[in-house]
Amino acid sequence: MDNISLNKHISGQFNAELEDIRNRVLAMGGLVERQLEQSLDALSSLDSNLAKKIIEGDHRVNGMEVSIDEECARIIAKRQPTASDLRLIITTTKTITDLERIGDACVRIAKSALEKRTNNQQPLLVSIESMGRHATRTLHSTLDALARMDADAALEIHKEDVKLDKEYEGIIRQLMTYMMEDPRSIPGVLDVLWAARAIERVGDRCKNICEYIIYYVKGKDVRHTSYEDMEKDVQS
Amino acid sequence: MDNISLNKHISGQFNAELEDIRNRVLAMGGLVERQLEQSLDALSSLDSNLAKKIIEGDHRVNGMEVSIDEECARIIAKRQPTASDLRLIITTTKTITDLERIGDACVRIAKSALEKRTNNQQPLLVSIESMGRHATRTLHSTLDALARMDADAALEIHKEDVKLDKEYEGIIRQLMTYMMEDPRSIPGVLDVLWAARAIERVGDRCKNICEYIIYYVKGKDVRHTSYEDMEKDVQS
Repeated sequence: MDNISLNKHISGQFNAELEDIRNRVLAMGGLVERQLEQSLDALSSLDSNLAKKIIEGDHRVNGMEVSIDEECARIIAKRQPTASDLRLIITTTKTITDLERIGDACVRIAKSALEKRTNNQQPLLVSIESMGRHATRTLHSTLDALARMDADAALEIHKEDVKLDKEYEGIIRQLMTYMMEDPRSIPGVLDVLWAARAIERVGDRCKNICEYIIYYVKGKDVRHTSYEDMEKDVQS
Repeated sequence: MDNISLNKHISGQFNAELEDIRNRVLAMGGLVERQLEQSLDALSSLDSNLAKKIIEGDHRVNGMEVSIDEECARIIAKRQPTASDLRLIITTTKTITDLERIGDACVRIAKSALEKRTNNQQPLLVSIESMGRHATRTLHSTLDALARMDADAALEIHKEDVKLDKEYEGIIRQLMTYMMEDPRSIPGVLDVLWAARAIERVGDRCKNICEYIIYYVKGKDVRHTSYEDMEKDVQS
């Protein structure tokens, strides 16, 4: 992992601890990414065994959140970090909250795979899967930007989220039409709608992580600012 | 505000800073609580002016999140807190994330108040409002428990959330029946459904805050644990 941007410390042990935290966040990200991929596999093939495996696997994501947070608190108390070291800890503890919620989204998607589906719901699942693959690519790029602490990439990913939002809106319209044409399908379609919503939220979570990356690199909190202001901060 | 449980510091200035942080979080909570109450007022009376006021007011909630987080980072860097002081900072920074998201839920509810409604959608709005008032009481109790750093109250609120979940499930069933009986109503009803979902999430956010309160008081991270384990930790 690229270590150039981390401050050099007199204490090699402190360096090792920060490096360890970074590795653990990326490992958690990797796990969540696999959960997301597999939840989409489960949904597209209606594979209930795989779906159950994902739901059971969520406790590992939760466990990583708790243990990384614990380590962050330990480092603050012991090492009294300042400047970019402190920002790394803050970025980490905020990032893992969003990763954990992406894990919850995977559970939501997996649950949709457990429902009985009629054949004519297949086109809906194809749309959801396509949107889900889009969200998976966004998550992958986000984790990449996090590994390299790349503010430019983070800004780009943030900007691109609007496409996922548009895809989501299209799916909602499609689901509405579907329900209006066949009201008996409503309970099943609503379940697909929750999965779509969960996927859309994955994009929002990635945007949050991108904001933390920019905060780490630039020292500016860009949450709740316009894209233009964010761009200025990244280019400054 | 009860200050007994805060450690006594040689530095009176540090004490004042921690006290200030606590006050600011509670002020943010108060603002969010008003936003929630008013968003329900707007929904029940379909008052579009009030709804717009809530949507515009969200930037104040966002601003408080950013400024409190900034102050927390400043305190960590300057004061190098440990033990319960550090837990107070961690509890604060996590709590305000959830408060900000409750603010977003208020915007979602207010947006539902901007939609044109037919007369026969009125019963749906009554159910939503009732659930919303329930969530407001939960938020109020949560902020109370936070002000007093009362782990027992936090545990009780956590346990009670199941009632809000049950109310939510009932509303979802009601909305489904409604859509099945009158498919033309689907777009409008879906909008109510998003509001219901937002209210249900307010309960989840309150549960999160209760977990942070227990973490502060007991020094145990009770996220992702069973209610029984949480009870043991609180009573220990």
